[in-house]
Amino acid sequence: MKLNDTIVALATPSGAGAIAVIRVSGPEAISIVAPLFKAKSRKKLEEQPTHTLHLGNIVDGQRNLDEVLVSVFRAPKSYTGEETIEISCHGSPYIQQEIIQLLVRSGCRSAEAGEFTLRAFLNAKMDLSQAEAVADLISSENAASHQMAMQQMRGGFSNEIQRLREELLNFASLIELELDFAEEDVEFANRDQFRDLVARIQKVLKRLIDSFATGNVLKNGIPVAIVGEPNVGKSTLLNALLNEERAIVSEIAGTTRDVIEDELAIGGVGFRFIDTAGIRETKDVVESIGIKKTFEKIGQAQVVIYLFDTSRLSKIEFTEGSVAKDQLQGNETSLTMIQVEIEKIKNKYPQKPLVIIANKIDQLTEKQIEILTSRIPDLHLLSAKTGLGVEELKEKLLNFVNTGALRNNNTIVTNSRHYNALLKALEEINKVEDGLNMDLSGDLLAIDIRQALHHFGEITGEITNDDLLGNIFANFCIGK
Amino acid sequence: MKLNDTIVALATPSGAGAIAVIRVSGPEAISIVAPLFKAKSRKKLEEQPTHTLHLGNIVDGQRNLDEVLVSVFRAPKSYTGEETIEISCHGSPYIQQEIIQLLVRSGCRSAEAGEFTLRAFLNAKMDLSQAEAVADLISSENAASHQMAMQQMRGGFSNEIQRLREELLNFASLIELELDFAEEDVEFANRDQFRDLVARIQKVLKRLIDSFATGNVLKNGIPVAIVGEPNVGKSTLLNALLNEERAIVSEIAGTTRDVIEDELAIGGVGFRFIDTAGIRETKDVVESIGIKKTFEKIGQAQVVIYLFDTSRLSKIEFTEGSVAKDQLQGNETSLTMIQVEIEKIKNKYPQKPLVIIANKIDQLTEKQIEILTSRIPDLHLLSAKTGLGVEELKEKLLNFVNTGALRNNNTIVTNSRHYNALLKALEEINKVEDGLNMDLSGDLLAIDIRQALHHFGEITGEITNDDLLGNIFANFCIGK
Repeated sequence: MKLNDTIVALATPSGAGAIAVIRVSGPEAISIVAPLFKAKSRKKLEEQPTHTLHLGNIVDGQRNLDEVLVSVFRAPKSYTGEETIEISCHGSPYIQQEIIQLLVRSGCRSAEAGEFTLRAFLNAKMDLSQAEAVADLISSENAASHQMAMQQMRGGFSNEIQRLREELLNFASLIELELDFAEEDVEFANRDQFRDLVARIQKVLKRLIDSFATGNVLKNGIPVAIVGEPNVGKSTLLNALLNEERAIVSEIAGTTRDVIEDELAIGGVGFRFIDTAGIRETKDVVESIGIKKTFEKIGQAQVVIYLFDTSRLSKIEFTEGSVAKDQLQGNETSLTMIQVEIEKIKNKYPQKPLVIIANKIDQLTEKQIEILTSRIPDLHLLSAKTGLGVEELKEKLLNFVNTGALRNNNTIVTNSRHYNALLKALEEINKVEDGLNMDLSGDLLAIDIRQALHHFGEITGEITNDDLLGNIFANFCIGK
Repeated sequence: MKLNDTIVALATPSGAGAIAVIRVSGPEAISIVAPLFKAKSRKKLEEQPTHTLHLGNIVDGQRNLDEVLVSVFRAPKSYTGEETIEISCHGSPYIQQEIIQLLVRSGCRSAEAGEFTLRAFLNAKMDLSQAEAVADLISSENAASHQMAMQQMRGGFSNEIQRLREELLNFASLIELELDFAEEDVEFANRDQFRDLVARIQKVLKRLIDSFATGNVLKNGIPVAIVGEPNVGKSTLLNALLNEERAIVSEIAGTTRDVIEDELAIGGVGFRFIDTAGIRETKDVVESIGIKKTFEKIGQAQVVIYLFDTSRLSKIEFTEGSVAKDQLQGNETSLTMIQVEIEKIKNKYPQKPLVIIANKIDQLTEKQIEILTSRIPDLHLLSAKTGLGVEELKEKLLNFVNTGALRNNNTIVTNSRHYNALLKALEEINKVEDGLNMDLSGDLLAIDIRQALHHFGEITGEITNDDLLGNIFANFCIGK
């Protein structure tokens, strides 16, 4: 990794805004910017102390590029740990580019994605899991993912790993010391204490590994499949859920036109609602492909919502109790058909949480509602229009998510790289335990301990390589 | 205008980026932010001097929202002239909103569009034309509009107006003084000197008014209509022009599908290329509507490009010299048809600069090119594919634009509000001149002078009202 050059990048989002910030970091940061900056105060930039702000102009020869504010950060008291200059300029994309190009002509190199944070890591301003949390923090879209990223950035996670690693390292040293005195048959490392440590490590690792199921889902949003015929009120339902949350909604065009995802936050937790084409039986080939896809989506979802429109129910059913299929008119449907569909979902996915929602109940009489709830147990009554049952639905959805760890501020693993390293570390620790039980010799024990230490080090970045770092930081945005 | 409250807004573009900047300005800026900010150094924010930077956390009660950098600017040494805090946070839209909402709950008001710059104006940090230049600067997309905005922001324009205004004011006072001594028939204001001043003012006003034609066009981009049949190489031409300029290209969907605009900078000047449907005669009703629209677009353009594809020319014409319309095959065309179309444009718009471009000439023989140029005078030969003739075309286009004033760094008026005020001021000054010639009495002269002074003051903001300010700053982005 080349660290002795000076890099530049736009740190604020691209596009026009009131201001934009251009970040310059590296040994020459101040000496490159100084001759291009004319301070209003006529002070010399090179002589300014750290953490100070200076008003002036960025000039390219005779040409005045912009009036800017320059922030000075002296190494190591900067984000990267290097000499750093931040230029706050007017937010025109043209001006941003002119200033960046001027800096590149003056000796800066355009920064690669995540290179500022990479430098912060290499300069020991943060460990690797903290650096990864920076990217998570920037992409956090709701309270849950934000809280997990903040916790990881503060080092809650790596501190725990770090402490265990040091204790383990201590034992490894003692055991290796025994090897030097092998002929004297001494035991520097107390085996009972070591057994205790191994048990403690196993417990922590298991807890962290288990937390990944929650962490992963909270980070990426809980997938919820909405099953129902077209126009039964899926989008009205989503709007009703949204109304009071003022969450971020985005429409992600799916792989097929049948699959649209809406993201929204409920109680600070992100949910991804996946629209499906429903599972109504049909002779149409295209539609049966749709049914197959719906079942696939149900399989991938963590929660399933089955939604139907009560205003379409055949009136005959509410009066005479049963209706033949050929008696249905227009887009009418029958409770029997709905029951069949619900059974299909339950049979195929018996373990999957299922919420059955009867929509538009504001249009039904009390008697009709009674018939409805007696025929379909655990029915969730809803009127997306009047808001009836919306709050209760939110609570139901939140109850499906294990947010206990989040509420208790426990450490949650959200990163699959960490998860894999923890799994491998646990595997090695289990081997150490086996070794202890079999009274293995110190040299064999030491090998497994070193392996476990290696996997711990992968998380915090004591053990690393260029490929790994390249992969991690390539996922950052440029300018961070 | 309420100025005694404290306002907050995102100052960087919305969306995700490495960092975002939230700006807080007003008497309570520091006292509102201080309790929400825990500095790493444990220093108290209230006690920090101006132009200093502080690392710490924004906290909402027990909840840690983000690790941030806080900039302190003490009144009057800030952009607005008020106490100002800038919070540089992680660039997640979620975090930005959480922090802004926390600040609003803590006593800030969400800033309206342009309100920071409005405050800068009201606190006399800049005059009105300088404030307007800030918005122009942010929206500048090329060297020309950037240079004009920078010049206006530095006050080049208003300084000139200001000087003339003071001289005029001086004479107005002297003339008004004469009125107090009316019975004594004295002349404090030397009429010859006054005549000189009026002549000088007229000259400056005329120059500034004339500059608006250039300024307006440079600011908004020079409209160029491209006339030609579909698929003659319009987009290839635009790409060829773009290639070496690395300019900003944007596609603006026009009012009809026939009209697409591409913006690009040539030699630092913005051009807006307006695609048209061509003007080929047809019996199709829809297409003849297209022809009507094409002529409308030509009327609005400052330069017209007529483009045809030489590879479609009937080969018969190159050998036998003439071809009947019914001899044409497929999408073949004839030089005669092209000549007719060119004549139509010339007849309808005799004053409009027209560039006739023969595209794909790399596929022609020298003999064919000779025939071509002999039949169509002033033909611009071009191969968008090989780049032949592209540089020459750029020069031709630039020559149609009067960039002299820009090159000479003259003051250019770009704002129609200023233009109108200058026109009105000139009108009043002409009345003053007439009055002088007719030997009008001082009290009548004074009225016209005061009117001229009023219009000068409108430009720099000495004369203003809430409606005017509201209109001007509503065009700003929020956060500026």
